Amino acid sequence: MHEIRIGEDIRGKNREIAEENRNLLKKHDVFSLNLMSAPGAGKTSLLEKTLPRLMQRYRVAVIEGDLQTSRDAERVRAHGALVLQIETGDVCHLDAAMIHSALHQIDLDAIDILCIENVGNLVCPAEFELGVDGRVMLLSITEGDDKPKKYPLMFIESRLLILNKVDLLPHVDFDIGRARREAREMNPAIDIIEISCKTGEGIDAWIDWIEKFYRQSGGR
Amino acid sequence: MHEIRIGEDIRGKNREIAEENRNLLKKHDVFSLNLMSAPGAGKTSLLEKTLPRLMQRYRVAVIEGDLQTSRDAERVRAHGALVLQIETGDVCHLDAAMIHSALHQIDLDAIDILCIENVGNLVCPAEFELGVDGRVMLLSITEGDDKPKKYPLMFIESRLLILNKVDLLPHVDFDIGRARREAREMNPAIDIIEISCKTGEGIDAWIDWIEKFYRQSGGR
Repeated sequence: MHEIRIGEDIRGKNREIAEENRNLLKKHDVFSLNLMSAPGAGKTSLLEKTLPRLMQRYRVAVIEGDLQTSRDAERVRAHGALVLQIETGDVCHLDAAMIHSALHQIDLDAIDILCIENVGNLVCPAEFELGVDGRVMLLSITEGDDKPKKYPLMFIESRLLILNKVDLLPHVDFDIGRARREAREMNPAIDIIEISCKTGEGIDAWIDWIEKFYRQSGGR
Repeated sequence: MHEIRIGEDIRGKNREIAEENRNLLKKHDVFSLNLMSAPGAGKTSLLEKTLPRLMQRYRVAVIEGDLQTSRDAERVRAHGALVLQIETGDVCHLDAAMIHSALHQIDLDAIDILCIENVGNLVCPAEFELGVDGRVMLLSITEGDDKPKKYPLMFIESRLLILNKVDLLPHVDFDIGRARREAREMNPAIDIIEISCKTGEGIDAWIDWIEKFYRQSGGR
């Protein structure tokens, strides 16, 4: 009982700070996405495919969340984006306060789009709002088609589900129809895009999705 | 600061209960393993390969930890093992108290080996001892060879690292040498076995590992 109350206090406080983040980003006309997935589903690889395309038209910053190491930050930085690294230590998710501190280190008037790469974890990142325009989750098809009902909150809270590594479909037992159907049972409004960061399949659809959502959110 | 202190209180209490679990299991001569991995790395598939082999010689029980659904429990139960399901709701790991309650529902004199399948998460399960003889982690090679340094605690706390889905090696960029080297940098004593639940490769080595460790722990 005690633990649960602490949990709700922490999440309530997190929501307040997320709201501050939302207002701050809005004030500076920054469009923002929070990328979430299990470890190794391909968030960093997706950013590596995304940045060269987005940076042709927009000024982009990335916040990288990791328990340890700045490996992902270095991979992303190599593409010329402004990158801020948050090492969470033993904390299994980013929270709104971490993002708030990071935002104060970025010249928000100098960027159009902020991409946040959350810690690899299919559970807790879904519980902590960061104050972004939209949450995007990746599911690698190697993780299995049974995940929507096993990790429902992540699917419920996301606006877009990206099914990654579809190049491996011939080699694994993954029923795309089942994954799509169960994701929609969890969240009827969720968009779904199939991609492969390896072959480039679906990257156009993902860039289109970002640009459409950006315009809907008042972006240019 | 406040959050950190709460965290340590919770983990200290968890350690006490884990010690009780350890004593209880020892008293009833039950050998126990805690299987941990990211979502979709193949814990349930591994149990499905393992149970028919182990159950030829030992009486086996399984505790299944999931946020939601009893899908994994049903898969495992189909193999005839005694299965107890723990649905954690929004808790991203099993803790010692959950296992303690489960142990009181099992006739411990009627089993030799207890396998616990933790919640799919590469972070928090490593922080919560359950009181078992050994922790075993699975890393699917589709998750990438950079994981040991990014999620160090899981590798540090495990006695065995199972590299699963090696049948997919021809189709993904995964450097087995790098993964082995970095896992050993985190934990020089860790055993490493390569397996494929799909082809059956390495399952013999895994069963041998269990039996050897069981005997070392005083089992028959």
